[in-house]
Parts: sequence; C-alpha cells; structure tokens
Amino acid sequence: MNDTALHVALGRRSYPIHIGAGLIGRAELFAPHLASRRAAIVTNETVGPLHGSRLEATLRGAGVECLTITLPDGEAYKTLEHLNRVFDALLAAKADRRTVIVALGGGVVGDMAGFAAATFQRGVPFIQVPTTLLAQVDSSVGGKTGVNHALGKNMIGAFHQPLAVIADTDTLLSLPQRELAAGLAEVVKHGVIRDETFLAWIESHAQALRERDAGALSHAIRRSCEIKAEIVSVDEREAGERALLNFGHTFGHAIEAAQGYGNWLHGEAVAAGMVLAARLSARQGRIDAGAADRLASILERLGLPVKAPAMPAARWLDFMGRDKKNQDGGITLILLEAVGRAVVVKDTPAHALETFLAAA
Amino acid sequence: MNDTALHVALGRRSYPIHIGAGLIGRAELFAPHLASRRAAIVTNETVGPLHGSRLEATLRGAGVECLTITLPDGEAYKTLEHLNRVFDALLAAKADRRTVIVALGGGVVGDMAGFAAATFQRGVPFIQVPTTLLAQVDSSVGGKTGVNHALGKNMIGAFHQPLAVIADTDTLLSLPQRELAAGLAEVVKHGVIRDETFLAWIESHAQALRERDAGALSHAIRRSCEIKAEIVSVDEREAGERALLNFGHTFGHAIEAAQGYGNWLHGEAVAAGMVLAARLSARQGRIDAGAADRLASILERLGLPVKAPAMPAARWLDFMGRDKKNQDGGITLILLEAVGRAVVVKDTPAHALETFLAAA
Repeated sequence: MNDTALHVALGRRSYPIHIGAGLIGRAELFAPHLASRRAAIVTNETVGPLHGSRLEATLRGAGVECLTITLPDGEAYKTLEHLNRVFDALLAAKADRRTVIVALGGGVVGDMAGFAAATFQRGVPFIQVPTTLLAQVDSSVGGKTGVNHALGKNMIGAFHQPLAVIADTDTLLSLPQRELAAGLAEVVKHGVIRDETFLAWIESHAQALRERDAGALSHAIRRSCEIKAEIVSVDEREAGERALLNFGHTFGHAIEAAQGYGNWLHGEAVAAGMVLAARLSARQGRIDAGAADRLASILERLGLPVKAPAMPAARWLDFMGRDKKNQDGGITLILLEAVGRAVVVKDTPAHALETFLAAA
Repeated sequence: MNDTALHVALGRRSYPIHIGAGLIGRAELFAPHLASRRAAIVTNETVGPLHGSRLEATLRGAGVECLTITLPDGEAYKTLEHLNRVFDALLAAKADRRTVIVALGGGVVGDMAGFAAATFQRGVPFIQVPTTLLAQVDSSVGGKTGVNHALGKNMIGAFHQPLAVIADTDTLLSLPQRELAAGLAEVVKHGVIRDETFLAWIESHAQALRERDAGALSHAIRRSCEIKAEIVSVDEREAGERALLNFGHTFGHAIEAAQGYGNWLHGEAVAAGMVLAARLSARQGRIDAGAADRLASILERLGLPVKAPAMPAARWLDFMGRDKKNQDGGITLILLEAVGRAVVVKDTPAHALETFLAAA
C-alpha cells in the first residue's frame, strides 16, 4: 500500500496517477473506473505473457468481463493497419461504448490503445497501465495518443485523457537495460527543462537509477510525473507551454525517422537530440558550453547515446520540416535559457540550422 | 446575399451555419477561418469537377494557399485505408497543424475529411461545405466524423466541430433525384422527433420539395439545422437527448449493413427504418397506428422506400446488436410518444424485437 496518487488537474477530465509496487494486483484502484463491468486489455506479445494474466485476474476478481487483445511488439507496428486489428477484435466481441480499454504495456501500446479508445465508436474510456519506465514517466501522462505514418512519427492521433494511470514499479524489474536507460532520458528532460534541483539529484543518483534502486526509481517517476502533469494541466492541447516537453524531440524525431523507427529507441534519440538542442542553445549564447557538456555527461552516465548519427544537413532539415510544431513553414525549436529553464523559439531560419548541423 | 447565419451554441466550439445560393463564391464567409492561409480541400471525383475549381478560386482569391485531395466517390471508400490517402497527401504537401481542411461534398466526404481533421497531427481546424441535401440538413452539423469498419458503419470516429458550415443551395441543382429524396428523409425525421408543425408543413409541401422549389428547400434546410443545432447544443457528446436524432437509424443501419453499404442510400434506409420504429411504437401503444401510416405516406410522397427488405429476425438482431447506443447488451431504441415527440427506450428485450420483426 505504498502509493499516494498524484493528480492531473484538467477539470472534468482530471485523473489520478498511482505509482508503487504491486499495483496491478490491486482491484480497488481499477474498480472505480469500471462501473460498466466490461473491459478490453490491449497489450503486446512481450508484455502480455509477463503481466497479462495477473491484470486479468484482478479485473475478473472485481466482476469485470474481460477481453485481451495482443499486438505484435514494436514501434514498427504502431500503424493504422494494426490499429484496425484492435477494432476488429473489439467489434468481434461486440464491445460497446462503455467498454473500458486498458492499455498494458509501454509507449507504443499506450499510444495505440489510447487512440483506439479515442476513436472506437467516437470515444470510449481508458486506463493506462504503463510497464516501461518511458511510459511511466512520460507517454502515459498527458493524453497524447496516436500512430505513425510512413512520412512521420505520431502524425495521426488525438488527445484523449485516461480515467487513471496505474504505474506498477514491479514491471520495471524485467525491463531490458537499454529500455530502462531510454526511460531515464525523459526523466533527465523533465529536470533540464524545468527543475535544476531535480537534475542535480539525477546527477548524484545516476548509478542508483541505472542499477534500479527501488527508492531512486520511485522518486524519479514521481517527480517526472509531477512536472509533466503541471505542464499538461495548464496547456492540455499543446497551444503553448506544453511544447517545452518536446525539448530534444525535434532532433530526436529526425534521428528516429532517418534511422527507421525501432533502430534507435525513442529515449535514445531524445538523449542525442537534447544534447544537440543544448549545444545549439550554447551556440546562440543562451547557455554556456559547460552546461551542454554537463547534460551530455549525465546522459552518458545513464548509459545513453549523446552523439547523433551522421547525416547530411539537408536530410535533417527534411525530417525536421515535418515536425508538428511547425507553423507556416518556419522551424520551431525548444532551447534552453538556463539549465532548468526551456523556452520555445520560433522561426529559426533553415540556413542557420543547416550551418549548425553541418558542424555538429 | 440571401443568407442569415444560424448559430450552433457549443461554448468555445460554437460555429455558424450559412445557408443560401452562391455561397461557395463568397470569400468573406471563408476568410475569417483561414488566418493561417493554408487549406486542403477534400472532395470526391464526382463533386470535385462540379464545384472544386470555384471553391479553389474563392480561396486563392482570398490569398490562401490551397491543395485539393480527391477521393473516389461512394460509401464503399469510407474506410481507414482511404483516410490514410488523405494523410499521405497532407504529409506529402507538408501540411502543418494550422492547415485548415475544407470538406467539399456529401456526407461521406464530410465524415472522412472531418475525421482526418480530428486526427491529423492530433487535430486541425476544418470547414464543412456540404453539397448534398443529406449533408446540408444532417451530417455537416453536429461534429460527428468517422469511417466505417467491415463489421459496422461509423464504428471508428471522433467528435470534431467545424469552424463553420457553408451550405450553398446551388449545389442541390445537380443532385440526382434519389439523393435529393434521401436528404428529405432526414428532414422528415427532424419534424417527426421534435416538431409536428414542421412535419405538417413538409406534408403540404411534399411536391414542392420533390421538385426542388428553392424557397421550400431553403426553409426545410434551415428548420432542420435549427432543430439539429438545438439538440446538439445541449448534448454534444451524445450522452442523452442527442440520441433522438438516431430515430429510424438503428433499423436503418441494419438495413444498410445487411444489404452492403451503398445499395441502399443512407436516407432510404432511414426512411424504411423510421417506418419500422413508428410501427413498433404503435405496437407498444405509444402512438396510434394511423400516425405510423401518416409517416409512411409522407415518405412515399417524397419518393422514399417505406418497406425494409425481407431478412430473418436473427439477422436483424445481429446487426442491431452492434449499434453504438447499446450498453451492457440490451437494445436501445428511439421510439415515438407522439408525432413530434421521440423518446429513448432502453433495454428492449431481444425476443420482443424478434417477434415484431418476424411479423413486420
């Protein structure tokens, strides 16, 4: 019983985030959101065998009729085509508008299950049960859902808030080290854009985090969710401040797209992307070069890549030109004014970026 | 200059409906919604050649950069696969989050373009330019968007309100007679569920409507939009009263699904479905049999089918079991308490419906 719920304040769409060990087994966290007693668990073929039967037992124990839909594992399957398989299964089982979709898995499962919930019969409720660190500290919070398109990541989607996020830290014990590190990249991001004190804490606990010290991970998840919830609460639809959460992501998305989704993990691409964004901030005189070096050093100690793969500047720009934050053709970037303070910088001229990238 | 805008009151998502002749040529109706000066017209290969170049000229004349995306014509193409072609074209043209999608066509185009707008980059603005009577009196108003699934109509979608609806009555002049009649079915529906006086007006103007008398059509469109806007305003997400707009639709959807989409027009299936719903209302003693006969007679005079195709009761139930209004397995129907007053009736037992359908 070691969780205390955080709260994402979004008026009528507010919801709790529960963080702690063993939460998948606790029916009382799920029951308030399952009045209709019909649920569909969406998971993948890696996570399903690890945690699916425990979640099913919890829901069935609470009197909930429960269907499980299993997707193949990987970003490559985050497509409209595989989304349609979720609809196939829901319709074959005669799921209705009150059927609650429960996402059990990492970011890909959460994004797809959430988008299925946003669009099945024009919207059904859903619950996030994130099982990777990345999903627990980032993608399960904030209501972004969607799938990729051949021409860009997350190009098709919707904002759809969950009824609750239930983050069971036990699921992190079976996570591959590379995926753990990828999650830590977003933890670092929350510190670097908003809270220098938290970044310093990460710096001094890098070893403990890498070694999955339970106390250190719990603190990292909680503080990350707090920062993200705070930002999302004031800007649900990404009109302004929420864009700060994309620090490192414009470069990161270009890395992922150029390398083919799945070759670099999202968090790895974001790590290298954050270093680029910090170095560009230094180049523009916003922060000193030492601050960018410090960020790179923290990320390296967490086992993350800090150097982007070599590619021609024109290719970078081509991929960055498709970023959702762009308006009327200019390139919008999130840069640092200080460690712990990110800002939105609009209309960076393509040629300036080209010069920077050619030298990076 | 013969239009006066109606207003759909939805707080921050409120929007005007303009109804009148020649509106596609009037840039000042579009300009307030195109501040970003980028638009993508989504149309089909039937409507595009008739009205596309005029709309493009209007938008370009207002300084808007404009892309046209043309879909094949027909309900059979209202699928995720064809939706993806819209995304292909938007991304190839580097459309961004402020690109306004303009739906130029009937209900299928409006539903697909609207759903593309709801989900492209998690939501972009859109304008409805409905070119069929059905779209002008029904589908363009209320924010329902979506596509069909092999296992059911409109099973995948979102609520996404337009910035404006611009209904140019000139587009009705080229409409096939069968499609005009299908639109009139929804006009009748608005009368029968809400306004006996309007139904009586339709009854006495059946000939004028069928012959496309401009004044009669304008009045029918305006009063239909008023009734629909009134209902949508108090129940945007279809939690309650909005379900009344589905009068005839549960039976109608079963007819469409059983016959294969496109063989019966939506409005034709709704016409036969409304007669069934009225006869069931009479069977239950809610209205007298004469009222159901009167409805059938009005629909017949408008050139609409009033008898559903023969199919086994079990097949009806199978298709009706997939209706979005169902909750926890029971069948929910919209029935009449009087001509001009529809009600939601929950949990009709399947066997009662089976007996009725077997005898129908």
